[in-house]
Amino acid sequence: MKLLYEGKAKQILEADQPDQVIIRYKDDATAGNGAKKGTILNKGVLNNEITTLLYDYLKTKGIPTHHLKTLNDRDQLCIKVAIIPLEVIIRNRFAGSIAKRLGVEEGRISPVTIKEICYKCDELNDPLINDDQALALELVTKAELKQIYEYALQINRELCELFHSIHIDLIDFKIEFGKTSNGTILLADEISPDTCRLWDSDTQERLDKDRFRRDLGNVEAAYQEIAKRLKERMGF
Amino acid sequence: MKLLYEGKAKQILEADQPDQVIIRYKDDATAGNGAKKGTILNKGVLNNEITTLLYDYLKTKGIPTHHLKTLNDRDQLCIKVAIIPLEVIIRNRFAGSIAKRLGVEEGRISPVTIKEICYKCDELNDPLINDDQALALELVTKAELKQIYEYALQINRELCELFHSIHIDLIDFKIEFGKTSNGTILLADEISPDTCRLWDSDTQERLDKDRFRRDLGNVEAAYQEIAKRLKERMGF
Ligand SMILES: Nc1ncnc2c1ncn2[C@@H]1O[C@H](COP(=O)(O)OP(=O)(O)OP(=O)(O)O)[C@@H](O)[C@H]1O
Ligand SMILES: Nc1ncnc2c1ncn2[C@@H]1O[C@H](COP(=O)(O)OP(=O)(O)OP(=O)(O)O)[C@@H](O)[C@H]1O
Ligand SMILES: [Mg+2]
Ligand SMILES: [Mg+2]
Repeated sequence: MKLLYEGKAKQILEADQPDQVIIRYKDDATAGNGAKKGTILNKGVLNNEITTLLYDYLKTKGIPTHHLKTLNDRDQLCIKVAIIPLEVIIRNRFAGSIAKRLGVEEGRISPVTIKEICYKCDELNDPLINDDQALALELVTKAELKQIYEYALQINRELCELFHSIHIDLIDFKIEFGKTSNGTILLADEISPDTCRLWDSDTQERLDKDRFRRDLGNVEAAYQEIAKRLKERMGF
Repeated sequence: MKLLYEGKAKQILEADQPDQVIIRYKDDATAGNGAKKGTILNKGVLNNEITTLLYDYLKTKGIPTHHLKTLNDRDQLCIKVAIIPLEVIIRNRFAGSIAKRLGVEEGRISPVTIKEICYKCDELNDPLINDDQALALELVTKAELKQIYEYALQINRELCELFHSIHIDLIDFKIEFGKTSNGTILLADEISPDTCRLWDSDTQERLDKDRFRRDLGNVEAAYQEIAKRLKERMGF
């Protein structure tokens, strides 16, 4: 299979159909836009599994996604999209970069759900931008941005509820959207402990990539725990 | 007169009335949030003059401002306000920090007028924030933010037209707003070559604080030129 793109956490491979791709989940982990590098044992398998569970859940809630079929423990068959160069972040609580940037203590609940967009551009370090800047850079149209925010907020509501039911607080998450050849916007990329902050509701223990970023140990076990709780919840 | 606050470019002094202040314009200049320090001869006098001319113009266009009366060549009598901790920036073209941050060449015309807000907080380096973040930090209410953006866009339209008539391109500017004791929002602080990018329409020569920031020389002459053209235009 021809490699179309090699990212930090996944490979994008050619599929049989020209409008499809195979997404292969790797164990490689990076933090700080590649400044910190490492491997998390079985991360690819776990993130493939978790993303599949979450995407299947979101599909039942009416969210259109790129995900067609999970092929094996590392690979997904997806609709090929042109990724909109925005990292769309939703925050229910302040944590990580935003807490530092705005001088807020980690974990404070935000009185409003915060929507953020960052310009996906490694050379510029994925800077936070606002809506006008996204339009000025012609990364997206006004109508597309409105649609993206609506999906993002709906996804947040659905995932908050789902994670709440397995005693996890969804602190924040990053998602990406892509456009198909006919212009339809689909949720794309992964949703996993690599891209969400997930805290145990009782202990507030971190069960996500912050364990890797901050050298907290037991990284694989945390991802395993998320997969386990989700599978139980889904009846597997 | 009692000094209430000493800023980098101005002093705020007690006035006879408790709901008023005297704003005294200094010659001190800083750039990069205080990293670069210096003095621009007569800057205080020139910025007081220019701000007065621009505020008087904006008043005739219906913009509510803090400015009551210019007392002498350094001092203005103004309504005392609680400054809303936002730097409101309007950009017609990419220049300075945003051009670097977004990888756009200096001077490119933006297809849309860009509104930006930065959280006025020296310790955090006045970070760019978006609307949701401003609401989450409770810096401003949704209605106040809407009002502020409306004023800022109107001020941009009025100032673009005014500067165009004296062969100056208004590239961008920063303004501040404050609230009176009864909650009314007023345009506050200065509007001057310290807070605007002003390029000669024919030569694209910088006639603003970038001459100081970038060591281009003839800083005072540039401010003088702006004052001269504005005074001619206003019939002085
Ligand atoms: N359905 C899809 N079609 C095409 N590209 C996709 C699709 N889903 C995700 N992608 C893109 O594939 C890449 C996945 O790789 P990975 O997550 O490892 O990238 P990354 O290292 O995060 O880098 P970056 O996202 O900055 O390119 C991302 O660039 C993502 O935007
Ligand atoms: N009418 C007003 N009432 C009260 N404060 C005002 C008024 N107009 C302006 N100010 C405030 O007075 C100060 C002016 O001083 P100056 O411009 O030198 O400050 P600065 O060095 O830019 O620092 P900073 O704006 O970060 O406090 C600013 O803090 C500004 O917000
Ligand atoms: Mg990625
Ligand atoms: Mg100031």
